[in-house]
Amino acid sequence: MNEIGIVRRNIQRAERAAVECLARFGSATVHEAMGRVGLMKPYMRPVYVGAHACGTAVTVLLQPGDNWMLHVAAEQIRPGDVVVAACTADCTDGFFGDLLATSFRAQGAVGLVIDGGCRDVGDLAAMQFPVFSRAISARGTVKATLGSVNIGVVCAGASVQPGDVVVADDDGVVVVPAGTAARVAEAAAAREANEADKRAKLAAGVLGLDMYKMREPLAKAGLKYID
Amino acid sequence: MNEIGIVRRNIQRAERAAVECLARFGSATVHEAMGRVGLMKPYMRPVYVGAHACGTAVTVLLQPGDNWMLHVAAEQIRPGDVVVAACTADCTDGFFGDLLATSFRAQGAVGLVIDGGCRDVGDLAAMQFPVFSRAISARGTVKATLGSVNIGVVCAGASVQPGDVVVADDDGVVVVPAGTAARVAEAAAAREANEADKRAKLAAGVLGLDMYKMREPLAKAGLKYID
Amino acid sequence: MNEIGIVRRNIQRAERAAVECLARFGSATVHEAMGRVGLMKPYMRPVYVGAHACGTAVTVLLQPGDNWMLHVAAEQIRPGDVVVAACTADCTDGFFGDLLATSFRAQGAVGLVIDGGCRDVGDLAAMQFPVFSRAISARGTVKATLGSVNIGVVCAGASVQPGDVVVADDDGVVVVPAGTAARVAEAAAAREANEADKRAKLAAGVLGLDMYKMREPLAKAGLKYID
Amino acid sequence: MNEIGIVRRNIQRAERAAVECLARFGSATVHEAMGRVGLMKPYMRPVYVGAHACGTAVTVLLQPGDNWMLHVAAEQIRPGDVVVAACTADCTDGFFGDLLATSFRAQGAVGLVIDGGCRDVGDLAAMQFPVFSRAISARGTVKATLGSVNIGVVCAGASVQPGDVVVADDDGVVVVPAGTAARVAEAAAAREANEADKRAKLAAGVLGLDMYKMREPLAKAGLKYID
Amino acid sequence: MNEIGIVRRNIQRAERAAVECLARFGSATVHEAMGRVGLMKPYMRPVYVGAHACGTAVTVLLQPGDNWMLHVAAEQIRPGDVVVAACTADCTDGFFGDLLATSFRAQGAVGLVIDGGCRDVGDLAAMQFPVFSRAISARGTVKATLGSVNIGVVCAGASVQPGDVVVADDDGVVVVPAGTAARVAEAAAAREANEADKRAKLAAGVLGLDMYKMREPLAKAGLKYID
Amino acid sequence: MNEIGIVRRNIQRAERAAVECLARFGSATVHEAMGRVGLMKPYMRPVYVGAHACGTAVTVLLQPGDNWMLHVAAEQIRPGDVVVAACTADCTDGFFGDLLATSFRAQGAVGLVIDGGCRDVGDLAAMQFPVFSRAISARGTVKATLGSVNIGVVCAGASVQPGDVVVADDDGVVVVPAGTAARVAEAAAAREANEADKRAKLAAGVLGLDMYKMREPLAKAGLKYID
Repeated sequence: MNEIGIVRRNIQRAERAAVECLARFGSATVHEAMGRVGLMKPYMRPVYVGAHACGTAVTVLLQPGDNWMLHVAAEQIRPGDVVVAACTADCTDGFFGDLLATSFRAQGAVGLVIDGGCRDVGDLAAMQFPVFSRAISARGTVKATLGSVNIGVVCAGASVQPGDVVVADDDGVVVVPAGTAARVAEAAAAREANEADKRAKLAAGVLGLDMYKMREPLAKAGLKYID
Repeated sequence: MNEIGIVRRNIQRAERAAVECLARFGSATVHEAMGRVGLMKPYMRPVYVGAHACGTAVTVLLQPGDNWMLHVAAEQIRPGDVVVAACTADCTDGFFGDLLATSFRAQGAVGLVIDGGCRDVGDLAAMQFPVFSRAISARGTVKATLGSVNIGVVCAGASVQPGDVVVADDDGVVVVPAGTAARVAEAAAAREANEADKRAKLAAGVLGLDMYKMREPLAKAGLKYID
Repeated sequence: MNEIGIVRRNIQRAERAAVECLARFGSATVHEAMGRVGLMKPYMRPVYVGAHACGTAVTVLLQPGDNWMLHVAAEQIRPGDVVVAACTADCTDGFFGDLLATSFRAQGAVGLVIDGGCRDVGDLAAMQFPVFSRAISARGTVKATLGSVNIGVVCAGASVQPGDVVVADDDGVVVVPAGTAARVAEAAAAREANEADKRAKLAAGVLGLDMYKMREPLAKAGLKYID
Repeated sequence: MNEIGIVRRNIQRAERAAVECLARFGSATVHEAMGRVGLMKPYMRPVYVGAHACGTAVTVLLQPGDNWMLHVAAEQIRPGDVVVAACTADCTDGFFGDLLATSFRAQGAVGLVIDGGCRDVGDLAAMQFPVFSRAISARGTVKATLGSVNIGVVCAGASVQPGDVVVADDDGVVVVPAGTAARVAEAAAAREANEADKRAKLAAGVLGLDMYKMREPLAKAGLKYID
Repeated sequence: MNEIGIVRRNIQRAERAAVECLARFGSATVHEAMGRVGLMKPYMRPVYVGAHACGTAVTVLLQPGDNWMLHVAAEQIRPGDVVVAACTADCTDGFFGDLLATSFRAQGAVGLVIDGGCRDVGDLAAMQFPVFSRAISARGTVKATLGSVNIGVVCAGASVQPGDVVVADDDGVVVVPAGTAARVAEAAAAREANEADKRAKLAAGVLGLDMYKMREPLAKAGLKYID
Repeated sequence: MNEIGIVRRNIQRAERAAVECLARFGSATVHEAMGRVGLMKPYMRPVYVGAHACGTAVTVLLQPGDNWMLHVAAEQIRPGDVVVAACTADCTDGFFGDLLATSFRAQGAVGLVIDGGCRDVGDLAAMQFPVFSRAISARGTVKATLGSVNIGVVCAGASVQPGDVVVADDDGVVVVPAGTAARVAEAAAAREANEADKRAKLAAGVLGLDMYKMREPLAKAGLKYID
């Protein structure tokens, strides 16, 4: 009954090929390809301009003001993972800084998504270790209370299972369930192929009203033009 | 892959006996009994003083500004259910009012938990139909875009599966997974039995410092008394 | 070019008959009758339970931390008016308390809507002088900088012209342009007549799905039922 | 250098007579009498309607998600004290509930002001133990990390020294330095005497414009009346 | 009575000369030149560093989660326009991205101001298409419910009429009514001329206290110097 | 009794040597060295990327929407000072811009920390005059109501005395009491020396679990590993 105090060591990560495929797309494209689900709240922002990450989730459940479980999580990281840290209560403390980033990178992590605060953002930018957080705060944390690693968590409003694919960039953070990663990647590719043609038409002055054939449904909905 | 546009008709509700047992406890006690997980964000508040509800979840995923799926959900309500409505994006519109409350009650619902807005709160208080929401807003909604009913949702930061038990009162809203409801109810009962004794001692002037034997760990942690 | 420092003495108030008619409806009904425009942001809340007001707007543009113009506005109040106070910048100070309420009532005002703070809320409840505000704050204000009275203002996201009708209750605050008040009142009456019948059907167990004939459009939109 | 991990046992409380005098006034009047300083942020709200408290401060510095120091503080309470709890970081957890309220009351406390969350609010209302908090939350807290008791703290934006007088009601929470309590009480009394006369005049229809002689300074500031 | 479902095709834009003149000034200068009115709320921020825009407003009223009317608005754009999009309820969805930016630019738009979310911000920065928004979000929107184009709107707290001049940069977004644009431009020029001289004096060490002759009014207001 | 309307001319600044020493460390390191107290709320952010400042505090208490006291403060600046401006109520107005920055720099100021808004941020970046604020806003302020200079203030949740050391960078703003500056600088130096070694080990793949000897306390706390 209690989800607190657990570390799951063996998790099923999404297939490497699907992850690599998803890494070619932005979060907005992936979110559309998923049918508009799986997006974290927009308060999750990169801590430096240009940060982006795509990898498989090692999940962490933190307690407010306590980053003990990030150290526990470090051992569970495999190359290509993104650590996804949720917290049992809203907290903006700086759970993560350049030392943990050094450790996470040494274990193979390609980024961190944390529904809490982060510090040493200048160093993180210099290291180019991408972090997406709800806040930046110099305030450190204690190591006193257990949380969990690699259980299902809710991070910034999105449900994340260990092994899911996380796509994070300057538009937001999207979670793709491991089992659907390949299909989502395909749908994203289809969508993007489609967009190049649309972009060219719009750039040439064709209106979306015509390209998407909106005039009839708009009229039917009752839109009135007044001179 | 797409969780949008689905209504699941057969869901496994928590056992009635466990629900009735949980109904005797407040949200704070249940939250403790669960090991401090499953609580919605504290922005979820009752729309009238004294509102409380306990029942099995019929879940709804709404689109912002659109309450179509609440009508779809009405048909899936069984006596003793609490409707739990999440939204794909933060929205404070008044998705729910006295007409839907009348319909939900007629179908057997005992309350609504909605991560969105609610209106007609005077009527709801008069009807004593308990609603817990993030906002109160007179703004109505359209019926244009599909969401889903009875899928797993994230509502106000908590993961909810259809059939889970929801305990809501003036302290907050807690979600108890259907499979653990009986055990949580037992733990809550044990906790409450325990509290009566503690309350009597504290009322008699015994300090928590002594009752909980905190003096030694405090000294060990380095606490210093200064005169 | 400058809208600051002006008091307009003669304003065209909505017709008394239309105001009285609108006073019979709640803010949610009036908002629907208007076609879902004119609603203030949902952060505007009554300062005591049960507060409601309907009247013609005397508008005020305040400066942050300064309530000078509320005194200027008092002289422009006519019986049946609701004072609507906007501020040039977000501010939660207590611009208004029981002394001003006494004065406003003596001049005939039936309420205040203020995109700022209010104080003496216990006294206001005892007086039953309805106030809708964004905050409650003991902090007083200075009398140093000009604003304006009876110019068009934006209050809590809604555009208000002097003389417009304001309908405020526990669901929110709606602004009805003076020129449309009679028509909106009619539409509200029609809507409410309509609701009694709907309520009876829903209470008898008829589903909105059937009453509103939603099954066909839902199916067309692709809704799938799963057992 | 470190303010963490300290309990001061002997503090200088404001004189009883001054506290009793201040208890006759509301927070708005006291705030004015102080020259408009010492007010906590308006997000501090009573957890039940009608809560009010006036007493001498026992201060607490909490860590986020940890209420250990509230137990330590209980021992320092003397009859007539109000416990004032600050937190080293923003946190809405339910640090305080009916058990601690029972203990605090047994030690003589007349209220709690906490820049954090509170739970068991139904019980607190039934007990009529006044609490002013930034949030209501069922979430409990741990006992793992030291803070301090009876040091100077910043609570909800106001600086509080142990022994200061705290005046809390439905308009807000004001802090009066112990050394100025008698003078502030006098000023509050003078202000209130003054108000009765003003109220009578305003109720009789005299305008603030005339009573406060504002017409000349308004004209000088450039106010223009337009017909 | 209903402002929803309307597209006005002929609008009176501010004169080109005045717009070009205003384009030489920052939003802070223009805001001062207007007498400190017309500023949008400070939550409106550029989506990339260095974004700035000045042009005539094509206004749009959106529904939450629905960007249909942005496509309708595209057809109404004339070279030099800035699209100003308000929403009937607070919403952070990504209503706008690189495809719409491509289309708007092809029609002659020089920027977008939207009281909602925006996505593809990396592409927008690469295109140097300036957008000012309340949020960045990967979440897409539907095309289901009518709003309006070229009606008066309230965007981020400011009233905007079609044809008004919008000045947007890293300090904020200001709206200049079309009819006053020429005069505001003159006032801005006068103000800026004035500032060069002040800047030189201040840089040379002259105090504002002396330059603005503040010592006497400060003393009169009661300011006391203590050694 | 009244703290308003006072300018203290002679303040005791922290020793120059200690300030210079502290200037070598980031805010996170200094905050740790202080024992995790003295940090401002994380809503305080630099107005341009890369801004950082370290100096002795000249404190200002502003009134909302009024920057008069910043001009008064300018005269009290000595080379190496950072102006720290609090406000008696939350306010995002642009109290400070390039003219005041020019003046402050001419007097020797090395930065500004303001619990309010700031404008002309493009110019400030060009000048490289570091400002840390809660908001950016084009809105100007009046000069009408007294505040104070060089009294104790609460700025963004931190208590600041005139002469304290302020360390501000992209991680936040920390306040070091003047009397402890030398000791904090030493502790910071010790901490940083310590970190280089840790960083090297972590980069080499050593886990924090081992380096910090966490495995035993984690096991004792009940952490369970599941395969």
